[in-house]
Amino acid sequence: MGSLLPKALQSLVDELAGLPGVGPRTAERYAYFIFKSRPDVARRLADSIGTLHDGVKLCPKTFALIDSHQAVSELYSDSNRDKKVIAVVEDPLDVIAIEKAKQFSGTYHVLGGVISPIDGVGPEQLRINELLRRIEEDDVQEIILATNASVEGETTSLYVQQQINEVGLTPTISRLARGLPVGVDLEYADHITLKHALEGRKTL
Amino acid sequence: MGSLLPKALQSLVDELAGLPGVGPRTAERYAYFIFKSRPDVARRLADSIGTLHDGVKLCPKTFALIDSHQAVSELYSDSNRDKKVIAVVEDPLDVIAIEKAKQFSGTYHVLGGVISPIDGVGPEQLRINELLRRIEEDDVQEIILATNASVEGETTSLYVQQQINEVGLTPTISRLARGLPVGVDLEYADHITLKHALEGRKTL
Repeated sequence: MGSLLPKALQSLVDELAGLPGVGPRTAERYAYFIFKSRPDVARRLADSIGTLHDGVKLCPKTFALIDSHQAVSELYSDSNRDKKVIAVVEDPLDVIAIEKAKQFSGTYHVLGGVISPIDGVGPEQLRINELLRRIEEDDVQEIILATNASVEGETTSLYVQQQINEVGLTPTISRLARGLPVGVDLEYADHITLKHALEGRKTL
Repeated sequence: MGSLLPKALQSLVDELAGLPGVGPRTAERYAYFIFKSRPDVARRLADSIGTLHDGVKLCPKTFALIDSHQAVSELYSDSNRDKKVIAVVEDPLDVIAIEKAKQFSGTYHVLGGVISPIDGVGPEQLRINELLRRIEEDDVQEIILATNASVEGETTSLYVQQQINEVGLTPTISRLARGLPVGVDLEYADHITLKHALEGRKTL
């Protein structure tokens, strides 16, 4: 009898198992949940997925996610945002994370990934030239390198910094602080985080 | 600017956050992953979801999941399966789990849930009458109560057992063994599991 699941369900399980962090068991649970939902609920989900690419695009300035009918991200066009300060992030969702902190009034530049030879991603696949152009055009004064605290994130930040210097641009360049996250006990912190927390200690 | 995400993406995030165990952050990751996929990949996923209800139905005998064009589950119609032995399970996915163990040659009956007053599920919503009818029609000799090892699962098994006895049917009724799962260290087992493991100990 081949697969134990009906064909239509098995093919949905296979598609869902392609989502990040979703294994076959989780995909089965999702698929069965959708089957148990009313057909119009499933139809709405299907429509949302089917129309996603028509409704969303990347901002040509910041490369953040915007509505298809928008010309440029409101995070850039908003006159309250300081265009002379740019937070450089890996992915569009990092923009959302920083915005939620409500602490940043500059604008963004999404690199679209990190340098990762293992995954075959080199610097030429990232939007570094677009960043250099913006720094020049908008007379940017400060660049905050807000890549993740991973080896790839650090490498990418270093590379971006070198490129900025190489073309003779001179904005202030900073990196997000490393240290103990709120709510994590010192005894559970990994040693690299503790190293950063010690190095970055503040005199009171 | 309202939501930080483009409208089309936000509505997909909202739909995906309805999946079991998926919070808003995970839904965001899934939605962004789908956006990053090629449009035809997204389209295929959308189609799989949209056609799911047309392609899958419940077997009228076992209530397992079957292809829409099938009359009855092959787990029932297959002449190699012993119709006189029924494993009673909560959900169709439990059938898959037991089948994967390749240890059972009887057939199945899916109750469609468990008795759970908190969730407003009473015994009348489960397919207990259908089970009683099958026991009579197929002259079933053995019922294996294979509900989960939860309070609701135990309650439901007890209730099904009572109903079988009440209508005067006399199949052998058994319950799946409780004990230490393979690969779990004794020191990490919870005390109820240890209690079951002790009670069910086997003389060597």
